[in-house]
Amino acid sequence: QWLMVVSAAVLYNFLFVIGRAVFWELNNAAPALWWTLDYTCDIIYLLDTLIHAHEGYLEQGLLERDTQKLRRHYLRSKKWRSDVLSLLPTDLTYIWWPPATCQIRVPCPVIVRFNRLLRFPRMSEFFDRTETRTGYPNVFRICKVVLAILVLIHWNACFYFAISYAIGFGSDNWVYNISGGRNSTLSRQYIYSFYWSTLTLTTIGETPQPENDAEYLFVVADFLAGVLIFATIVGNIGSMISNMNVARVEFQNRMDGVKQYMAFRRVSRELEARVIRWFSYTWANKQALDEERVLAALPDKLKAEIAIHVHLDTLRQVRIFQDCEPGLLEELVLKLRLQVFSPGDYICRKGDVGREMYIVKRGRLSVVADDGQTVLATLGAGSVFGEVSVLEIAGNKTGNRRTANVRSLGYSDLFCLSKRDLWDALFDYPEAKHSLMERGCQLLRKDGLLDEQAFTKAQVEHENLTDKVDRLENTLENLQTRFARLLAECSSHQAKVKQRLTRVEQH
Amino acid sequence: QWLMVVSAAVLYNFLFVIGRAVFWELNNAAPALWWTLDYTCDIIYLLDTLIHAHEGYLEQGLLERDTQKLRRHYLRSKKWRSDVLSLLPTDLTYIWWPPATCQIRVPCPVIVRFNRLLRFPRMSEFFDRTETRTGYPNVFRICKVVLAILVLIHWNACFYFAISYAIGFGSDNWVYNISGGRNSTLSRQYIYSFYWSTLTLTTIGETPQPENDAEYLFVVADFLAGVLIFATIVGNIGSMISNMNVARVEFQNRMDGVKQYMAFRRVSRELEARVIRWFSYTWANKQALDEERVLAALPDKLKAEIAIHVHLDTLRQVRIFQDCEPGLLEELVLKLRLQVFSPGDYICRKGDVGREMYIVKRGRLSVVADDGQTVLATLGAGSVFGEVSVLEIAGNKTGNRRTANVRSLGYSDLFCLSKRDLWDALFDYPEAKHSLMERGCQLLRKDGLLDEQAFTKAQVEHENLTDKVDRLENTLENLQTRFARLLAECSSHQAKVKQRLTRVEQH
Amino acid sequence: QWLMVVSAAVLYNFLFVIGRAVFWELNNAAPALWWTLDYTCDIIYLLDTLIHAHEGYLEQGLLERDTQKLRRHYLRSKKWRSDVLSLLPTDLTYIWWPPATCQIRVPCPVIVRFNRLLRFPRMSEFFDRTETRTGYPNVFRICKVVLAILVLIHWNACFYFAISYAIGFGSDNWVYNISGGRNSTLSRQYIYSFYWSTLTLTTIGETPQPENDAEYLFVVADFLAGVLIFATIVGNIGSMISNMNVARVEFQNRMDGVKQYMAFRRVSRELEARVIRWFSYTWANKQALDEERVLAALPDKLKAEIAIHVHLDTLRQVRIFQDCEPGLLEELVLKLRLQVFSPGDYICRKGDVGREMYIVKRGRLSVVADDGQTVLATLGAGSVFGEVSVLEIAGNKTGNRRTANVRSLGYSDLFCLSKRDLWDALFDYPEAKHSLMERGCQLLRKDGLLDEQAFTKAQVEHENLTDKVDRLENTLENLQTRFARLLAECSSHQAKVKQRLTRVEQH
Amino acid sequence: QWLMVVSAAVLYNFLFVIGRAVFWELNNAAPALWWTLDYTCDIIYLLDTLIHAHEGYLEQGLLERDTQKLRRHYLRSKKWRSDVLSLLPTDLTYIWWPPATCQIRVPCPVIVRFNRLLRFPRMSEFFDRTETRTGYPNVFRICKVVLAILVLIHWNACFYFAISYAIGFGSDNWVYNISGGRNSTLSRQYIYSFYWSTLTLTTIGETPQPENDAEYLFVVADFLAGVLIFATIVGNIGSMISNMNVARVEFQNRMDGVKQYMAFRRVSRELEARVIRWFSYTWANKQALDEERVLAALPDKLKAEIAIHVHLDTLRQVRIFQDCEPGLLEELVLKLRLQVFSPGDYICRKGDVGREMYIVKRGRLSVVADDGQTVLATLGAGSVFGEVSVLEIAGNKTGNRRTANVRSLGYSDLFCLSKRDLWDALFDYPEAKHSLMERGCQLLRKDGLLDEQAFTKAQVEHENLTDKVDRLENTLENLQTRFARLLAECSSHQAKVKQRLTRVEQH
Repeated sequence: QWLMVVSAAVLYNFLFVIGRAVFWELNNAAPALWWTLDYTCDIIYLLDTLIHAHEGYLEQGLLERDTQKLRRHYLRSKKWRSDVLSLLPTDLTYIWWPPATCQIRVPCPVIVRFNRLLRFPRMSEFFDRTETRTGYPNVFRICKVVLAILVLIHWNACFYFAISYAIGFGSDNWVYNISGGRNSTLSRQYIYSFYWSTLTLTTIGETPQPENDAEYLFVVADFLAGVLIFATIVGNIGSMISNMNVARVEFQNRMDGVKQYMAFRRVSRELEARVIRWFSYTWANKQALDEERVLAALPDKLKAEIAIHVHLDTLRQVRIFQDCEPGLLEELVLKLRLQVFSPGDYICRKGDVGREMYIVKRGRLSVVADDGQTVLATLGAGSVFGEVSVLEIAGNKTGNRRTANVRSLGYSDLFCLSKRDLWDALFDYPEAKHSLMERGCQLLRKDGLLDEQAFTKAQVEHENLTDKVDRLENTLENLQTRFARLLAECSSHQAKVKQRLTRVEQH
Repeated sequence: QWLMVVSAAVLYNFLFVIGRAVFWELNNAAPALWWTLDYTCDIIYLLDTLIHAHEGYLEQGLLERDTQKLRRHYLRSKKWRSDVLSLLPTDLTYIWWPPATCQIRVPCPVIVRFNRLLRFPRMSEFFDRTETRTGYPNVFRICKVVLAILVLIHWNACFYFAISYAIGFGSDNWVYNISGGRNSTLSRQYIYSFYWSTLTLTTIGETPQPENDAEYLFVVADFLAGVLIFATIVGNIGSMISNMNVARVEFQNRMDGVKQYMAFRRVSRELEARVIRWFSYTWANKQALDEERVLAALPDKLKAEIAIHVHLDTLRQVRIFQDCEPGLLEELVLKLRLQVFSPGDYICRKGDVGREMYIVKRGRLSVVADDGQTVLATLGAGSVFGEVSVLEIAGNKTGNRRTANVRSLGYSDLFCLSKRDLWDALFDYPEAKHSLMERGCQLLRKDGLLDEQAFTKAQVEHENLTDKVDRLENTLENLQTRFARLLAECSSHQAKVKQRLTRVEQH
Repeated sequence: QWLMVVSAAVLYNFLFVIGRAVFWELNNAAPALWWTLDYTCDIIYLLDTLIHAHEGYLEQGLLERDTQKLRRHYLRSKKWRSDVLSLLPTDLTYIWWPPATCQIRVPCPVIVRFNRLLRFPRMSEFFDRTETRTGYPNVFRICKVVLAILVLIHWNACFYFAISYAIGFGSDNWVYNISGGRNSTLSRQYIYSFYWSTLTLTTIGETPQPENDAEYLFVVADFLAGVLIFATIVGNIGSMISNMNVARVEFQNRMDGVKQYMAFRRVSRELEARVIRWFSYTWANKQALDEERVLAALPDKLKAEIAIHVHLDTLRQVRIFQDCEPGLLEELVLKLRLQVFSPGDYICRKGDVGREMYIVKRGRLSVVADDGQTVLATLGAGSVFGEVSVLEIAGNKTGNRRTANVRSLGYSDLFCLSKRDLWDALFDYPEAKHSLMERGCQLLRKDGLLDEQAFTKAQVEHENLTDKVDRLENTLENLQTRFARLLAECSSHQAKVKQRLTRVEQH
Repeated sequence: QWLMVVSAAVLYNFLFVIGRAVFWELNNAAPALWWTLDYTCDIIYLLDTLIHAHEGYLEQGLLERDTQKLRRHYLRSKKWRSDVLSLLPTDLTYIWWPPATCQIRVPCPVIVRFNRLLRFPRMSEFFDRTETRTGYPNVFRICKVVLAILVLIHWNACFYFAISYAIGFGSDNWVYNISGGRNSTLSRQYIYSFYWSTLTLTTIGETPQPENDAEYLFVVADFLAGVLIFATIVGNIGSMISNMNVARVEFQNRMDGVKQYMAFRRVSRELEARVIRWFSYTWANKQALDEERVLAALPDKLKAEIAIHVHLDTLRQVRIFQDCEPGLLEELVLKLRLQVFSPGDYICRKGDVGREMYIVKRGRLSVVADDGQTVLATLGAGSVFGEVSVLEIAGNKTGNRRTANVRSLGYSDLFCLSKRDLWDALFDYPEAKHSLMERGCQLLRKDGLLDEQAFTKAQVEHENLTDKVDRLENTLENLQTRFARLLAECSSHQAKVKQRLTRVEQH
């Protein structure tokens, strides 16, 4: 807020120091007012110097607040120089050059306040901050460009008037002609200068031809500057306007591409209409197809926080996400992808291989029989389906195929979580995995789709190759020890047999 | 369609409320016509209010049709306000301010109908919908921009005329001079104003210089607006025109790049000509090299539907796709890539490692002997080749190498399916995999290329590592039990031997 | 070539039918010349109709040449209509309206030849083909745009002159004033009209103000068209110029980015200079950093052909690529990446882990001792190094670490082939793999770096896990049979022992 | 530096050969000065020819310095032709056509020095090199464009004056009128011509209308050229200005996207403010979010050198990087990613699964207890944390979960190294891996978090599957040999038993 006040003061100086220096009548019109405004600005500058000197800065990422340190930092940085220079009481010159004496004379004494413009960095700081904070950055940017153009034209107008004075008002056709009824009024002086300046800087050129060398040079310089400025404006405003609805344009380009493709490939009218309906619903209800890309710039933590914040209402209704660890939830939330289905679209058909599970965000889905008519059940927001085939439970009689036809009744927005992403996330959370498997088994049992035998067998077999090789090894070690025992026994037996035989022989 | 009628009414008001308010002669020219048109528009507005109030909206993705709810929704939304405001019978003022009295006076009483312009949102709704639906979106957009410019110039023309009236017609050189033979006619009044407005807003500036403060200000504002408008037009139309043939430009850029590269690397003329021929055929016959990228915006289901629709004719001729499950077909269709071969290009050579199978979409291919001349067979649209080496059948004597030289006779478009994609898709469809392997074996047998021994062995061996380890384990368990038996026998034998020896000793 | 002739004829008609229709003096200047040119064009048209009717078209990718079919195809397509219409002998009207009578009259009878312009599609065909074939596509495009602008201005000039005639030459200030010494000459008539047209269509507007309703309307329409044309030109030429050196600009952007980064991070001057040297050498000698991206648009076969063609000279010098199968060579060539090293850069240092092998394309490298001074050997174009550590030969005493320091003497361009790519490619070519390993072993043996024991062991062990498990199984089966034999022997032994004991007992 | 001198000489000739040839008064103003400058330039040219002939060129990547070779190379290249042509003493014509006689005559004899402009390639060489080297490439490019425009306008001005001379000064309104007080001075002559040229080439068009055919043609050509030049300038300067802050614009676009998304999804104010703070800190302190992308253009070696150079200060403080091999360090440094955390952000929470380790680059972090208040420790720049869970030490009681809450005190910049990248890099450096594991174990032991039993077991088990199968095999071989021994013993025993029994029987 303070920066705004300072910026206003700087802008005031930008406009009126040069303005009053050139248009003496403006200067003389209201000396009291100017006096008040000038010294108000000076006070604002003074205050700003103090505030600037005590503005926190980051040290090791921490905001430094210690006034001693702040002042030292301020003095070490080079900012204090322009601050001090812009505060120098140059208007002391008024003593020798009283401002009141300015009659038909350019420049007026107010020109000595020129150093006030050195506070410009504060204004650009204000613009930068506002641009970062505002919710309408492009509108702000266009306003900034327009303001810059206006200030530029204003300065150019002042130059024109000053040059006219230098050459002599009315000395030829090009310069401002101050004599004549209306031309001597301040408003006409300023308005004509501004008009001249606008026409020149916008390279329109509807102005009287110069007659003097200096005039020629000034006009040529102005026109060349105008061409550059114009090129800059056209480029800037063009790119800003294209940025302003970059999401919309991108969306349209994609849609145009699909439409062109369908026209070229002669897709049936009916399918084309469906695709277009899908696009218009998607645009109307989501506005940003590419959530992922938008958030890609943020670090994972912030991304997860935003995603959880945004999808919280839906996720709260989903039972399997309720007893999750927060870490797992963060990972899963980042992997949800939003899909939109149009009325009558099948989300899955019986017998399809299931690779995703779905969470209904909005809309209504109906589980239909194979005839496509009989509605067996209706799913609303917060329902979850398709999780069984994703879990790959051994003994699942359906073999991970979809067990139902699910059709979107109207438009519906579904979160979709792919098998792969789920398993990746579950890898580090064995408990969650276990409880999810439990839940899947219950669901299957309820529907009588679990082959208990196969399941138990799989449970037993649920040791991986390494374990098996381990067991093999154990078995072999066992064998070896037994073998050793056998050998030992054998030899002891042989020894005994020998002994005995010896004894028998000794008989 | 209704929206079009409403838009026409809104546009009528946009043009003629201001037009008649300023150009009194236009107003007086045909009072009956204006009266009829005005009240026709009002009736259209009235009807539109009713229709708008009963327009369906989406609730939970379903189109709401219940009139009660629709009306409630309409009243809750803020649209009814502008609808009602735009219908206010402000022309009741005519009672005190009769429209007939408008002679050389600006504005005419018709200005009270200004509220009719508030129905603007309906027009923009019409434009949005048409833009979404039309098959020529860029032409439509350019027309929209041009219409907007024309309306803008029209309004500006009206402002010019109104300001001329305010300053006094003919009071100086800049304002419209109404006296004089032709200048007093309506057509000249309007045409001159429009001319003036065009020249100002397009920043051409061929207009008389202002002489009055108000005139100066108006001209300056107009020129500045003109510069912004011009920047916007240049930017917009430029980007639209570049969007209109973005596919073509992208294609050309790619081609230019390749041509530049070949020139830089001094590739032989002959090869260069072939590459250029390939490009020009590709462009002429496919128009969109990047089918995948175009369709990337759509969800998988729609993508598959479009792809099946587009490639149906070809796929119908392919035997191996005929008895596929629909789910597998969808997956495979999404993985087909179109490749174009020029006359004389070898698609594969004998002995190459086979990584893709090909389906002929269009064109004719010849299977040639090693001499490159003798044509052994000719393949037409719908033929499939290269599927054997993709299947990796054990016992394939060729070792997955290509067994024939296939050359494109003319240009040919082939669908190509990579080994990897095929296996990925088949993973979930074991039956399809089995039947495909069967077919592959038959083909190999027919050509005597199947090493039956290796095949049978591989069939037997077609158990994976886990199975083998399982068998190992079983063998070891077997061993252990036998060992145990051996031990038992051994010990019993020893026991017996001991016993007997004892007995012998006891002799 | 023929198309060029036809295009010239079409262009002639485009310029002179309207030109002679409006500027009667042009028409009357050289009747014989016009007569000759007109009927030459007509003959060209006639010939072109024949040629067009016999132009081959692609059927199933093959160029159809059968004249019967070609004619049928031509008649079926709708092109013959415009061809016939453009040939209609409309100049039969000359009988009633003799061309010679055209004195100060617009339009002249030659206007009846207007249908000749319908042959326009042939000209656009010519432009399309030339654009595809030319080596300077952007220069050609700019010429095309400039030609289009000139034709447009010419037509507009003709319209201006015709309107001037309609209003009456010299009737006011805006129209062309035909009276007066020079103004009545043809050249002045045309040049002034062209001048007027240029100024209007380029929206410069240095033209006299209209005075007539029709004039106003014409000027307004022209200016509006001019704004659109101007926007299109600015957009088009801008994008063409930016396309013309898109490679250069991209390169500069990348370089600027790196320079900015180094400045921001305060990288040492010396390193910065090295980076900039690297960039400028790369630009000067390769011009296209992104070979891969440029060729990405082409199918693999063409890509490989170009790559082989381009790198043939280098590859010919490389021994290990000489006895390769062509299929393997194609794969490897596509995987080579060009790397540039600056003077003094180390390509590899002793002890580094080797992940790439290098082929010297250009430049000289020195193998240096650890002190960085003693040069042990010098490698020139065609040398290969680093292949040993890539091969991962078991028993390599260095453990796949680099065994030498290699430093670039001057700038050098090296092809680099990563371990991963090499192994991927070799997977399908076991013989090549074997011979490469052989060669690697020889190299190692030569330097005494091969641990023969480990190598032999590895050779023996060079069976993978599956083989080992197979052998385990065999061993176990062996064991089992032996065990069975043992058991059998044991039992037979026991039987015998028993028997004998029995016999002993029976003593 | 030398090139700069040459460029100055070339520029001098570019400006003044044509200038003096047309403006005879300029030529006559200071013959001595021109004479000096001309022949100074000629001497510079002469020197430059020598220097150019001895400029090193790259042969096989090495800078050739042998003067013999250099001269031969120079003569073989075609550069010497333009060098020699530009030095031809064409001013020998002065003998027949003395320069002093040039009074009101165009062109002056100085025109014979036109061949001096052929040295242009040297100037463009200078521009190219400077563009590559300068730290402000875009400023330089804009200056180059502006210089080109000025030279163009200068030449056009000269043409205008020459044409005026040809038509006759003052013969009509359009040409330069040399009579009249001021018009006859040189400065007015030049300034008016320059003014006329500027207005025409920038398509402003505020110039008197031509009256002559030649004038018309010249003006039309100039205006058309102007439109093209203007289109080029607008396009070029637009793209340069957009390039000048492409990093900033990209950053803003990303920020705008996130802001728009948050507004659309109605994210809480507090979270929004945090995100914006994060963005503004990131921008203020890093300026280039996409270090990776910037450096992507460089080869790996240079990238690593820059990265090490940039991050050296931080890495020096990290103990685990101190005893690394340089090769490993290079690899790790390229894999570090910088992450920024805002005040109060948790970097990790107790119980989270650890997938990254962190190195503090700047800022202060506090390890807090579960209550989020009690600060257990504070980490400063150079600290490392999170490395234990990344190492996956078996027997880690925490199971690779984070063991502490770490929170950023202020803003902090952390290098983050993912588990995957670390292991990839360590694969080739077993010693480093071992020492890192050691260190991890020590850390765990210190905190009593190492389950020693599990650890020892894991150490023992730390042989992979292949090893196990190897051991299995060994065991089996062992078994087999023992078995063989057993069999042998058995049979020998049996033999003995038999023998003895026989003997017993023989009793």
